[in-house]
Amino acid sequence: MRLASVKSGRDGRLVLVNRDLTLCALAEAAPTLQQALDRWAEVAPRLEREQKLLDLGAARSMAFRQEDCAAPLPRAFQWADGSAYVNHVELVRKARGAEMPASFWTDPLMYQGGSDSFLGPRDPILMADEAWGIDFEAEVGVITDDVPMGVSAAGALDHIKLLLLVNDVSLRNLIPGELAKGFGFFQAKPSSAFSPLALTPDELGDAWDGGRLKLPLRSTLNGALFGEPDAGVDMTFDFGTLIAHAARTRPLAAGTVIGSGTVSNKEDGGPGRPAAAGGRGYSCIAEQRMIETIQGGKPVTPFLRFGDRVRIEMLDGEGRSLFGAIDQAVERYTPPAAQGGIP
Amino acid sequence: MRLASVKSGRDGRLVLVNRDLTLCALAEAAPTLQQALDRWAEVAPRLEREQKLLDLGAARSMAFRQEDCAAPLPRAFQWADGSAYVNHVELVRKARGAEMPASFWTDPLMYQGGSDSFLGPRDPILMADEAWGIDFEAEVGVITDDVPMGVSAAGALDHIKLLLLVNDVSLRNLIPGELAKGFGFFQAKPSSAFSPLALTPDELGDAWDGGRLKLPLRSTLNGALFGEPDAGVDMTFDFGTLIAHAARTRPLAAGTVIGSGTVSNKEDGGPGRPAAAGGRGYSCIAEQRMIETIQGGKPVTPFLRFGDRVRIEMLDGEGRSLFGAIDQAVERYTPPAAQGGIP
Repeated sequence: MRLASVKSGRDGRLVLVNRDLTLCALAEAAPTLQQALDRWAEVAPRLEREQKLLDLGAARSMAFRQEDCAAPLPRAFQWADGSAYVNHVELVRKARGAEMPASFWTDPLMYQGGSDSFLGPRDPILMADEAWGIDFEAEVGVITDDVPMGVSAAGALDHIKLLLLVNDVSLRNLIPGELAKGFGFFQAKPSSAFSPLALTPDELGDAWDGGRLKLPLRSTLNGALFGEPDAGVDMTFDFGTLIAHAARTRPLAAGTVIGSGTVSNKEDGGPGRPAAAGGRGYSCIAEQRMIETIQGGKPVTPFLRFGDRVRIEMLDGEGRSLFGAIDQAVERYTPPAAQGGIP
Repeated sequence: MRLASVKSGRDGRLVLVNRDLTLCALAEAAPTLQQALDRWAEVAPRLEREQKLLDLGAARSMAFRQEDCAAPLPRAFQWADGSAYVNHVELVRKARGAEMPASFWTDPLMYQGGSDSFLGPRDPILMADEAWGIDFEAEVGVITDDVPMGVSAAGALDHIKLLLLVNDVSLRNLIPGELAKGFGFFQAKPSSAFSPLALTPDELGDAWDGGRLKLPLRSTLNGALFGEPDAGVDMTFDFGTLIAHAARTRPLAAGTVIGSGTVSNKEDGGPGRPAAAGGRGYSCIAEQRMIETIQGGKPVTPFLRFGDRVRIEMLDGEGRSLFGAIDQAVERYTPPAAQGGIP
């Protein structure tokens, strides 16, 4: 199934989308994705029939426009982001001259993110200050049904109901101060954005091996290729392991979104090379800056500025966009006090 | 208004409760608290009329039992917990011989918590292992409507719609390992529990000064008084400041729950004294253990064990329970693999 939430109210309106991403049909089995996930075992078979009718051209359909989409879950009850590409973490540390503990290769890193105000795939990234070091992070995510506390990594795989793409917007210059306080990210991780479509695993064929999505994740910055590392390569922890980590001491409710962390590949056994130099490139600006720092002593590529545009997409073997595209402009935000309105 | 959510489905059924917490009436203006918060400006006046009818004995009412309650928001889109009683933070650091940065007195500490699976006020605290160092943390919390990004601390006060009590269950022995990884809490903060009632600020009279709740927060452990520090004393950051901190780089959606952090008082200018020694006592076991460590070189009071019971309540000047009581037993959890079920 190919599901999306067209903007409508706080939770969007669930639709089924055709293979070319040109047509959609209002889902009849559930009005919103959260409501579908709340009763997935009952609702999913009905949605599957609706998907088949649409794909056969037998459903009442309308034009599908990615610009009309909210995030598949416009607000969610949980967003937990892993850091499964340990290569990325090792580079961050290396760039600031810090050793990475060996346990990072065996014990997943994960942070609790805000899930109350997700951005739609074409919503602007509104920020008050460029000096915060605005960056994107291209990731793969999964949405689960109810996961019992203490689930095993193998058992967790059965709870993956949907996959989607994520732009985990990050404010790099706020991170050191927040992490130094010891409580993790908060202000440094503003609202994340999601792809127009969420897909059931069967839509991905052999590219989904049950725990990893084996396709390149393509990011462009102002139209130029920035990276296309393979999400199936160098993913130290699969999604089953990430879910089990999250569920060790509490259950996860249906509609939990788990992120892979920034997709990152090694090349020829070493760090990846910039896309501009013919390498696989990166899924965030910070990683390119780290390579620049390691190689040249200082970063060259600036973080995002107002007016910049980031696009994140995943194509199948025939060049077809699987999830639709996250495509966001960075824009200046004026806080309520400065707007003269009621804050 | 005195609101509660009687257990029903995933989101409970919103009810209005009388002053003695003996009767309630099904809310007609909204079936769930989240739906009320989603349209608060429109729904609140209708709920107020329903509350008045109940209080006048003119509503169709039924018996109210705190044991039937879920958390006021059984699942929420956001749970962000501050650490406003900096005294508590300073003691934690002191007990492990670490200096607290001076900035902690001016820049709030806050972590993003899991909000998808809150515990009801009488639900057991299910944990697989006593060795995790199970502890309670008695706190005050507020629930907001939609808060714009960049709100001022003063402007944030207008967004506080409800107050409630929190048991921020913590796994002390998992904290050092998680914080050392640098991404904040995750497994160390399992599902939090909330009081049966959420109250509009007007229910608290002079005890609510707009940003702080000036009443003792009473915790008992297995029936014995453990602490009753005043939530209005030594709260370095008021709720307006905490909300503004959370909203610096993103908006907060209606139904956001913000916690005060563990309530903690100094006494005679120094750390508080145990309730058993005639002092105000503590709102978590960790703080009593810190005092024991500072004074005697090692902690004496054990963390919670299976069978222990924690009760958290706030009484007004006449001894009336304002929010009803959080009253939870700690019980052993058997993970699905060990249960032989499908994990």
